[in-house]
Amino acid sequence: MNQPTKQTVYLDHAATTAVDPRVVEAMLPFWTEKYGNASSIYRLGREAAHALEEARQTVAEILNCTPKEVIFTSCGTESDNLALRGVAFERRQHARKNHIITSPIEHHAILHTVEQLEQRFGFEATYVPVDRYGMIDPADVEKAIRPDTAIISIMYANNEVGTIEPIAEIGDIARAHKVPFHTDAVQAGGTLSLDTKALNVDLMSLSAHKFYGPKGIGVLYARRGVPFFPMQTGGSHERKRRAGTENIAYIVGLATALRLAHQEAEETNARVARLRDKLATGILERIPDSQLSGHPTQRLPNSASFLFKYIEGESILLNLDARGVAASSGSACTSGSLEPSHVLRAMGYPHEVAHGSLRLTLGKENTDGDVDYVFEILPGIVEKLRKMSPLYSG
Amino acid sequence: MNQPTKQTVYLDHAATTAVDPRVVEAMLPFWTEKYGNASSIYRLGREAAHALEEARQTVAEILNCTPKEVIFTSCGTESDNLALRGVAFERRQHARKNHIITSPIEHHAILHTVEQLEQRFGFEATYVPVDRYGMIDPADVEKAIRPDTAIISIMYANNEVGTIEPIAEIGDIARAHKVPFHTDAVQAGGTLSLDTKALNVDLMSLSAHKFYGPKGIGVLYARRGVPFFPMQTGGSHERKRRAGTENIAYIVGLATALRLAHQEAEETNARVARLRDKLATGILERIPDSQLSGHPTQRLPNSASFLFKYIEGESILLNLDARGVAASSGSACTSGSLEPSHVLRAMGYPHEVAHGSLRLTLGKENTDGDVDYVFEILPGIVEKLRKMSPLYSG
Repeated sequence: MNQPTKQTVYLDHAATTAVDPRVVEAMLPFWTEKYGNASSIYRLGREAAHALEEARQTVAEILNCTPKEVIFTSCGTESDNLALRGVAFERRQHARKNHIITSPIEHHAILHTVEQLEQRFGFEATYVPVDRYGMIDPADVEKAIRPDTAIISIMYANNEVGTIEPIAEIGDIARAHKVPFHTDAVQAGGTLSLDTKALNVDLMSLSAHKFYGPKGIGVLYARRGVPFFPMQTGGSHERKRRAGTENIAYIVGLATALRLAHQEAEETNARVARLRDKLATGILERIPDSQLSGHPTQRLPNSASFLFKYIEGESILLNLDARGVAASSGSACTSGSLEPSHVLRAMGYPHEVAHGSLRLTLGKENTDGDVDYVFEILPGIVEKLRKMSPLYSG
Repeated sequence: MNQPTKQTVYLDHAATTAVDPRVVEAMLPFWTEKYGNASSIYRLGREAAHALEEARQTVAEILNCTPKEVIFTSCGTESDNLALRGVAFERRQHARKNHIITSPIEHHAILHTVEQLEQRFGFEATYVPVDRYGMIDPADVEKAIRPDTAIISIMYANNEVGTIEPIAEIGDIARAHKVPFHTDAVQAGGTLSLDTKALNVDLMSLSAHKFYGPKGIGVLYARRGVPFFPMQTGGSHERKRRAGTENIAYIVGLATALRLAHQEAEETNARVARLRDKLATGILERIPDSQLSGHPTQRLPNSASFLFKYIEGESILLNLDARGVAASSGSACTSGSLEPSHVLRAMGYPHEVAHGSLRLTLGKENTDGDVDYVFEILPGIVEKLRKMSPLYSG
C-alpha cells in the first residue's frame, strides 16, 4: 500500500467537512473575550450584537436578500423543520390550508417532518415523482397544487446522488399559485448560487458544516411577508422568529465559511469537478458491472455516486475504511439502517441494485493522489466482495 | 476612577458566562481534526460517536441518570420548548390531556411556549401563584392538577431574583398524580445539585453558557418512559428524540464545563456567596431606599437583586456600563422591552418599584476588588439619577 491507513483520504464531504482554520480563527475571540450576551445593553453585549448583525449582513449579501430575512438556527434540520411546521401551522390556522407538496427524495429532515404533520397533526401530503436521474418535473409540481396547499418543499440538490432540481422553475409555478415555496439547500450551500431572487424561493435552509463551517449552526432564509409561526419560542431573538441566546461564535463562523466558500467557489468547483470526473470515469473503466447514479450533467460539482451490482454498499465502506478511505453509501443520517436508500428506490432502482451504492463526495483538500489511491484499492475490494457474494457468477 | 472603563467588571453571570479556557481546549480538536459526522461508520465517524457517548456519560453521572436519558439540544430554550410541546402534544393525542400547569415567574422560553400552546393549539394553562419572595407553594401546584393535566413545568431557580423553588416536593406531588414534571434548571445548572432522582423530576433543561460553556448547546433530561413526541424530526440522532447532526465540539464543551462546574461547585459557591453577601450588605448600607428582591436565604449563591426606589433600572445599567460594570435589570432576553419584569410584577411589586431593579450575578473570576469598585461607583450613580427623577424628593 502506498499510503498508511491512519492517513484518511476523506471522500465524504456531503456528510460533513473539516472546519476551515480561517473559520476557527474568526470564532475564537467569541468564547473567552467577546463573550457577551447579544441581548445585554452594556459594551460586551453590544459587541456581540454588532458581530451578529455583521454576520447577518454577510449572509444576506450572498443570499441577495435583506438582513432581516436571515434567521440563524441550530442546523439545517432545524431550518427545514421550522420552514415546514412554521408555515403549515400558520397556513392552517389563518387560511385553512392543510396540504403539503414535497418529493420522495428529500432529506429525512423534510420527509419525517411531513410524516409527523400527516400522522400526528392531520395534514395531507403529495409526493411528486422523480425520474431515473432523481429529477423532478416542474409540471408535476403544478399538477399537485390544490386550493388548500399550504407549502411546497423541494430540495435544491440531492444529498445522495447530487442531482440539481429545477428550483427557479418550480419557484415560478409556486409564485403564480401564491403558495410559499421552501427549498432545502443544505447540500448545495457551498457550491451553487444561493441568490434567492434568481431561485424564486420564499424559504431556504442552509447548514454551515457542509461548507467548512461548524456543525450546529444553520440559516433559514424567510422572505419578508412569508407567513409562519415561530417553532422555538421564548426571548425576542431573531425578530421573534427563533428564540434562544445567539451562538455568536458559530454565527460568525457560518458567515465566514459562507463568504469564503462563495469567494472561492469558481476555482474550487472547477478543481473539484475535474477530480470528480476523473474519479467517475476511472471507476467505471476499472470496475465491470458498475454505473453512475443521479443526473449525468445536472449534478453537484463535487459529487459522484455509483451502483455496483451483486454487493452491498456497507461492505465496500468497511473495506475502504480499513484502507483509510472515508466514504458513504448514501446519507450519513441513515447509516446503520438496513433499508436501502429511499432516494434510489424513488428513482426506480430495485432493492438489490440500490443496496450496492457508493457515494464519493470531494472537497477542497482532495488531490489527484487521493483519486489515484481509490483507483488502486477500490477495484480489488469490489472484486473480493463479489467473489463472496451468492448473487455473483462472474 | 480607580479602574479604567475598558476593563469590564462582569457582574451578569446569569445572562451568560465566558467560556472556561479548559473548555475551549477540550473543544478545539473537534473542528479541524476529529471532524467526522457521528453517524458515519468509518474511523472519523466512530471517533466522533465515541466522544459523543463519553460526553453523554459525563452528563449522566452528574444528573444521576442513565446516558440514554440525556438528550443534547441547541440551548436551554430548545430544551424547554421540547419538554413542553413534546409532552403536551403527545399527552393530547394519546391521553386526551389538554392542560398545562406552570408559574408566572418562568423564563419566557416557558411562558411564550405555553402561550403559543394556548393561543394557537387550544391547550389550557393554570399559573400557580408565587409569594413576595417569588416562592411557589407545592400545595398550590397540587390544587391546580386536573384529570386532564398533561405536564407541570416549574423552574428550579429563578433567573431574575435567584429564588430556589421546592422542586423535590413538587416532584413528589406530580409523581403521586402521575403527571410528567419538567423543571427549567438553566439558571441553577452550574451551582445547585442536578441529581434528577433527588429532585423527583421527569424532564430537566440545562444550558452550557450559564456554567462557563459555549452558547448554543443544551441538555434535556428525559426520564425513561416519559411520553413525548420529538419536535425536531429528521435523522435518527439522539435515539430519534432530536434530529440534526450532532455538534460534537459543543457537546464535549458542555460535558467538560458541567464536570468542572460540579467538581469545583463547593469551593466556587462558597467564595462567590461570600462576595455576594458582601455586595448585598454593602449596597443596602450605602444606598437609602434600597431593598433586596427574591428569597433572603433560598436563593442561588451567586445572585443578588435589588430594588431602588424612584429610578429606572436601565438608567443604572447605562451609568454602570459607562464606568465599566456589566450588570442587568432582569433577564437579558427581555432587555429592550419597556415593560417592567413579569417576575417582580408576579411577586406583587407595583410597576414603579419593579422598574428600579438591578441584578448583580457573580462568577468565579470576580474578586473583592470588583465588589469594592461597585461600592465606589453605585451610590453616586443612584444619587445622581434620583436627583434627576421627578418622583424623588430626597
